[in-house]
Parts: sequence; structure tokens; C-alpha cells
Amino acid sequence: MSNKTDDYATLSPADIEGTSGAGSSGPVYARIRDLFEEKVLSGQYRPGQRVAPIREMARRLSINPMTVARAYRELGERGLLVSRRGGGSFIASAEMKRQGGKTPSGNDPAIDPQGISSRLFELARAPGVIAFTGNYPAVEISDARSFANCLREKLDSGDTDSFFRYDPPSGREELREALLPFLAAHSIISRSDDLIVTAGGQQGMDIVARHLLSPGDRVILEQPAYFGAINVIRAAGAIPVPLQFGPQGFDLEQLELAIHRQKPKLIIINPTFQNPTGHTVPLEQRQELINLALRTNTPILEDDHCPEIRFRGLPLPPLRSLPGGDRIVFYTRGFGKVFIPGIRLGVLIPPRAALEGCLSMKATTDLQSPALLQGALADYLTRSDWPSYLERLRATYRERQENLHAELVAATGDYGSLSLPDGGLNLWLQLNGEIEPRDVYFNAVRRGVAFAIADSFSFHPARPKALRIAFGLTDPADFREGATRLTAVLQSVVSPQLSLSSAVT
Amino acid sequence: MSNKTDDYATLSPADIEGTSGAGSSGPVYARIRDLFEEKVLSGQYRPGQRVAPIREMARRLSINPMTVARAYRELGERGLLVSRRGGGSFIASAEMKRQGGKTPSGNDPAIDPQGISSRLFELARAPGVIAFTGNYPAVEISDARSFANCLREKLDSGDTDSFFRYDPPSGREELREALLPFLAAHSIISRSDDLIVTAGGQQGMDIVARHLLSPGDRVILEQPAYFGAINVIRAAGAIPVPLQFGPQGFDLEQLELAIHRQKPKLIIINPTFQNPTGHTVPLEQRQELINLALRTNTPILEDDHCPEIRFRGLPLPPLRSLPGGDRIVFYTRGFGKVFIPGIRLGVLIPPRAALEGCLSMKATTDLQSPALLQGALADYLTRSDWPSYLERLRATYRERQENLHAELVAATGDYGSLSLPDGGLNLWLQLNGEIEPRDVYFNAVRRGVAFAIADSFSFHPARPKALRIAFGLTDPADFREGATRLTAVLQSVVSPQLSLSSAVT
Repeated sequence: MSNKTDDYATLSPADIEGTSGAGSSGPVYARIRDLFEEKVLSGQYRPGQRVAPIREMARRLSINPMTVARAYRELGERGLLVSRRGGGSFIASAEMKRQGGKTPSGNDPAIDPQGISSRLFELARAPGVIAFTGNYPAVEISDARSFANCLREKLDSGDTDSFFRYDPPSGREELREALLPFLAAHSIISRSDDLIVTAGGQQGMDIVARHLLSPGDRVILEQPAYFGAINVIRAAGAIPVPLQFGPQGFDLEQLELAIHRQKPKLIIINPTFQNPTGHTVPLEQRQELINLALRTNTPILEDDHCPEIRFRGLPLPPLRSLPGGDRIVFYTRGFGKVFIPGIRLGVLIPPRAALEGCLSMKATTDLQSPALLQGALADYLTRSDWPSYLERLRATYRERQENLHAELVAATGDYGSLSLPDGGLNLWLQLNGEIEPRDVYFNAVRRGVAFAIADSFSFHPARPKALRIAFGLTDPADFREGATRLTAVLQSVVSPQLSLSSAVT
Repeated sequence: MSNKTDDYATLSPADIEGTSGAGSSGPVYARIRDLFEEKVLSGQYRPGQRVAPIREMARRLSINPMTVARAYRELGERGLLVSRRGGGSFIASAEMKRQGGKTPSGNDPAIDPQGISSRLFELARAPGVIAFTGNYPAVEISDARSFANCLREKLDSGDTDSFFRYDPPSGREELREALLPFLAAHSIISRSDDLIVTAGGQQGMDIVARHLLSPGDRVILEQPAYFGAINVIRAAGAIPVPLQFGPQGFDLEQLELAIHRQKPKLIIINPTFQNPTGHTVPLEQRQELINLALRTNTPILEDDHCPEIRFRGLPLPPLRSLPGGDRIVFYTRGFGKVFIPGIRLGVLIPPRAALEGCLSMKATTDLQSPALLQGALADYLTRSDWPSYLERLRATYRERQENLHAELVAATGDYGSLSLPDGGLNLWLQLNGEIEPRDVYFNAVRRGVAFAIADSFSFHPARPKALRIAFGLTDPADFREGATRLTAVLQSVVSPQLSLSSAVT
């Protein structure tokens, strides 16, 4: 609608002189290319935005137009820029490709955080590709058959009518009641009136962000973080502030400093088997986090996506369940990562003082979640043997995790270090310093192996150089071949010549 | 989280001296009461906000504390204020009531636009109440049985797995394809790539508002309007600007003036059988609206909720289908108002240039709509006899509409004028000048008849004095008794003494 193409995506001389951020060394064309890429990935450039013409950019930066042209060409090859008939280059978007925008190397999917879920979805189904992209259980392992039976029974019951009418925004009472013991198993003691049934964990996060945030507000978020969390912050017009997150959790002093300096309106944390890193916040830090949040009156949004998928170690209590947690923690839980993503159900528990506001936002968003699915899930939780489903799930994936870990450690040991998280369906391969994840990514897709890269989970230039290897949907029979392909890719990126010759011999 | 109770809900001397807006004449206590009510309804006061103490308010306004006390008492009786143990009065909210906040007259539901859908839902199920609150087809009339069969078949098909995985945010291809002929029946010619499957029309509106609006932006909206539209504007931090809407549609000169003065970022229109009034924008105005929108580059959000439920006259083309409409109109359509609300499905068609942004917002909101329901709806639309379902629906409700209209005209003729819209499941009773809808509402609930009042659809003090009589869920056998009860209420409000004596004799 608005003429958004009037403001060019461009760079200033200061941009290419500055040496902060990754990829700012090397030849000028590479720095222009990398800076553009960073600004696309961080959302500073919008899909569809027009890029400054070559001559104009060269004049601005006082450099040779050929240098700009080379940067643009490489950005095109990476799928980040497209040319339009009638002239001009634009930041790539899926839509422009549909409209016939020219993508010089058509096989490279554009990388932008907004479209990542669509792209992972496509990669997971591409023929011949071994996809390490699904971080949720395969349907054949999940208890989908039992759930489908609950749905059938609901349809055959005399109660059908009530599923087809409007329901209250909070969700069906039968589901909220059935969720209480489910939550109590995680030490979360609640009343059904305190729960809001949501369309998965994603909607819970979005509701909280919309309830609490105004444009320009700061939000502290793990770096790297689940892209859905980055998106809800950006959609609210707020600004994510990175909090480094490692195998030992957070640096709480750094967090406290950030709170005092940035005055964030919210902290978003995915404390257990974090997506994408698999790291877990240790027990002692959890209570300290709550205390800090209470002391500084900074709400926490706890995204607890798959605490049940624990292979080793003792379960840790969610932040919400700790003393004081009920006053400061918004707890959101989806069923997608341990059960069935396609039914799009989850639960949000705000602090009581924020319940009314969140309910009202839920009504504004979609009035309510589909009643029939809620009813069937209530029956499933009440009547099925959820604990033994979880046992089966854990046993299956623990074995797969350990096998894949062994394959990958053997195959990729020269190129980086691989984590072995205590749970969850992701491994995290931290690449050695010289390896650029995006180069690995583009090469990998061509060689028939796919995964997500840290860039897709980053909102800050200081992003880790790492790959997320998710194994929820991958056939274990493909683990070895996937590891072999990945190694070949890493080898080709590190030593292009060596790789070429070894491919010839 | 935040200490929102620190800023009192209060009035300034200028507030009660001003004579603009409805209800500002009469005794001072009544003006205070009405101004408070207006500010609650318009969202200027928040549920849970503390009200200035009586003495402080009296001092501010230089009036007798008894006058303030009387205003507060009447606000309490209307369910708008609650007192808390430990002192203080607060703007009422459903949550406070749950927490045991004292509501002086416990039976009066609080009126606030955010909670209206919950309240209509409760009223519709209250025992003994004849509820004229459901403006969607009853399940037994809708084709729910056929739809349930489509669901059963989907569950029994080999395709189940795909319904339980993640799907792309745009929605299932099979549903988007099935929607094309459905839309073409309304002259909307589209490609499946242009459609986004949404959680009902409500989510379509919310996505568009979030995509286009920033806090402080102006949005032109019919006055009165569907409360869901008011809510999406407010949730985006934008400001609704009223556009008067009557049986002859809009005053286009007034609209053009408003566009030039207010520079709105969006116009929201529900052009056919508008909720709540039932009015329809005439054909000639539709093209003029498009031309005006194109000329001033102001996007239109067209909420087309039930064009099929037409009893008289020829179908009118939606704005989106008119020349130029595809460039400026975001078209949103739910299935709730003609088919099954509980499945929460709908479709959004943005102008092509905004497709990417809306898709991305859909992903941020809830990733995708539930795949199984989408698949079943695709089958239903493809295989069922949708045209003959619509014929049955129209025949049933045309008869009900005409019967109810006749009953109500006979019963309420002395108190207002009743519309007979060409379609939809609402009648609109414009009350004679002296009758206050809220008085009618509270009396009516006590006497066992319920409906919505114009206040719930208003975002501006100059609200019409009218009742929305929705008959989608009301048993026709109750029409006469409902009309009789309503007449008794109107009589009691107009002449309290007369009504009392007639009740005694």
C-alpha cells in the first residue's frame, strides 16, 4: 500500500568502516555483501525493499561501481536480492519469487527469519534431501492414533453441537480441568480459571508480547533464540536485547546490568533444552532469575516447549513453579513439541493480575481455539496413558540422539564441537572459527542434506557460528549418510580445492 | 505487573462542564455517572483501575461529596464499579469478580467492549432467559452433520499423518483450492497463492490491523461497528474515527473530509448486513468507495461476514471484486456466521503487495490453523451441496426474520422503530429519544430477555440508542414471549410507575 520502495536499502561509509560484527574484515565487496546480509537477517531491511542502485551506492561509499556490482551479484547468488523486470534490485521475499522475480541461483532459498518456518517445512519434504530440520516427534511415534480415536468419539457423542458453536476465549472448561494434573506433574499448581487455552505456544508468546509491549520497548532475549520469539517481539514493535546463553546458562550479572541499563519490559526465556542450542538453565540460576525479576519488577515469559523429552538427569522445575514465580512469570506451553503440532493447542498461564488483559487479547486475536480439538485433547489427557507415551517417546529418541551424536562426532570432529543436550530433539554443532554457517548451508542444500543455521535464530550481528541438527523427523537409517554428506560439505567449505580433487578421485 | 492502580480514574471540572456527547445534561450525579460509563466503554478507563476516592473527586470538581457518592453508587448498581475489602473502588472486570470483589448488585454484568463476547455467550445459556444474542446459525440448521462426516473420513483416510504435522502458515493447498470457486461465487477471482487461511474472520482483521497500523494511527470505522473490529484497532494502539453508517450507507463527502483531515491508515467496513445494524452499503457507493480509497491511497479492510444470508433483493458484489478492489482491499471472510463458528476458519485475501507481510504476521500469531479442520472443510466445500445448504438456511431464517419482525413491530411500535434488513440474523431497534439502552438492558436481564445494546458496538460517545436483536439461536416458539417481555421492559423504563401498577393488578 505505502510506497515502501521509496526508501532504498543502502549503506553508509560508516557501515563499511566499522569493524564490529561478524564478517566485517576481508575485501570491500565481501564486507558490503555481509553487511547487507546482516541487515536482511536482522530485519533492518524488509523483504521487497528496493536496494540502492549500483552507481548511487558506489558514489555514497566512494568506491568503484564494479565492487558494488560484485557484492550485489553474490547477494543474488545467495538468494537475498532479486532483480525485477523494468530495473532495480530488491530484497528477496517468497512473494516476489512467486511473482516471477528473477533469482539468479534459483535453488538457494532466501534466508530471512520471518520465513524460516516455511522454509524448514519445504526442506523437510524435498525429495532426496536428508533433512535434520524437524524438532518435534514424528507422527508415527507420537500417540496420534489414540488422539484420533478421541476425536472420533467426540464426533460420535451427543455433545457434537457444543463443539460447533462459539465458546469462551479462555477455552473449554473440560480442557482447562484436564490440564491441571498435566501441569501439576511439572510442579505448576494452578486453578482452571487461571489458564487460557491458546493456539500452541506461539500464540501464548504473541499474546503476552502484545499485552505487555509497546513500540520501542526493550525485551531481553537469549541469543540465539527460537525465531518465533524474535518474531513476536518485532511484531510488537519492540527491540530484542541479546542475552548470551551457554551450556552453563546465563551470566546473571550481565543480565542484571542489562536490566538496569535497558529497562526491559519483558525477559523471554526458553529454559529447558532451549531451541536452538539445547542448553538448559541450571536449577540454582532459576530461583535467582525469579528473584531478580521480582526485585526489578521485570516480567518473564517462560516458553517451556518440551520439558518431558529428557534423556538424562533429573527434571528441573519450571520458573513458574518456583517461589514468587506465579507473580512474575507468564508460562506458555504448546503441545507441538512433545505430541501433535498440527492440532495447534497450548496453554498460557499469566500472573493473575494480567489474566484479564491476556484473555482480552486472545479474544481479539481469534475469539477462541477450535472447540472440537480442545474437547478431544481433554479426553486424551484424561483417559490415555500419557506417562507411558512419554516413556516410549523418550526411549525412542534417547537412542536416536545418542546414535546421531556418535555418527556426527566421528564425522565432523575436525570442524567443530557437538553438544549432547540432556533432552530435546536438537543437537548443536558449534563450527570452528573460520567456517561460515551460511556457506555450509547453501552447499549442504545442493548436496542433499539440510538443517537450520544459527543465523536463523539470531537477531544480533554477534551470532554464533553453529548449526542446529534436529532429528525428530529424520529416519535413523539416514543418520550415517546424513553425517557423511555434512562432512563433505564442511570439507568443501574449509578447503574448496581439496574437496574438488577428492570428488574427482 | 505494573502498579496501574496508582493513576486514578477521575474526571476534571472541564469534563462535567462540557456539553458534548450523549447524557451530559441532567443532574450532576447523573453526568458524573454517564461520563464514567462512557470512559469505561470507550476504553479510557481500564478494568481494575482505581477510581478517585469520593472526597478527592468532590474536591476536584468543587461539588458535594454526596453527589459523587450517588454517582458511584449508581455505577456500582450498573456493575461498572466494584469495592474492594480494604477500601477503594475500582473499574469492574470479570477477573475482579472472580477474586471475590464485591459487586453491589451482583446480577448486573459489567459492560465493557472487551468482554462483550464472553457475556453474550453467558447470556445465551442462562436458564429461563430468552436470548436474542446469537447472530449465527443454530447447529441443527447448519450442515454440521455433513461436516462431521468429512472429519470422520479424514480421520479414517491414510492421510491422517499430514494433519498432525506442521503445515505452512498460508494454509493447506487443498483448502485454498477449494475456496476459489466459493469466492468466485461472490465474483472474487483469485489464485490459491493469494489466500491466507485464518482462524475465522476475526484473525483476518487482526492480522491486517497489525500489518498496517502503528500506535496513534487513525482508522475510519463505521459507528456502530462489530466489537471485534474495535478491538483489533485498539490492540494495535490505533484510534478509531467514527463514520456514520445508516440504511442508505455512508455520506461519502463526510468520508472524504475525514480522510483528508485524519489521514487514516485504514478504513474498516462491513458492507453487507452490517453487524450490528443490518444496513448494507448500496451498489453505487461501493465503486465510489474503491475510487476514493485508490485516489487517497487508503487501504480498506472489508469484513464480509455473511453475504449468503440474503432474504430479499439481489446480491451485491463485495468491494474486493470491483475494479481496482484487488489493489486496495484486504478481504476477510469467516465461516462462523453462515456455517460453523466453532471450527474457527476463514480466509484473508490481501492486495498482492501486502501478502508477504500478512503471511508473516499469520506465522507470528499462531504458525498455522489446525490442518485437520482445514482438510475437512476443503472436502466439505468440494463435495457437499453448499448451494442447497444455503437455500435451506435462507428459507428457514427468512421465515424467522419476518415472524420476529412482525411480533416486535406489534409489541414495541410505541418505543422505537425496527429495521427489516435484507439479510443477516440481526434486527436493529432504534429506541425513541428518551429511552436509555443501558436501562433497558439491565431491566431486561432481570425479566428474562437478553440482547445486545448499541453501546457494546460503540467507540464514540455519540452512540445510537438502539438494541441489536439477533435471532440465529432463538427458538421461534419463544419469539412472542420474548417480544412481550421486551415490551414490558420498555414500558417499565419509560413509565416506571405505570409498569409497577400494571404488574400489581
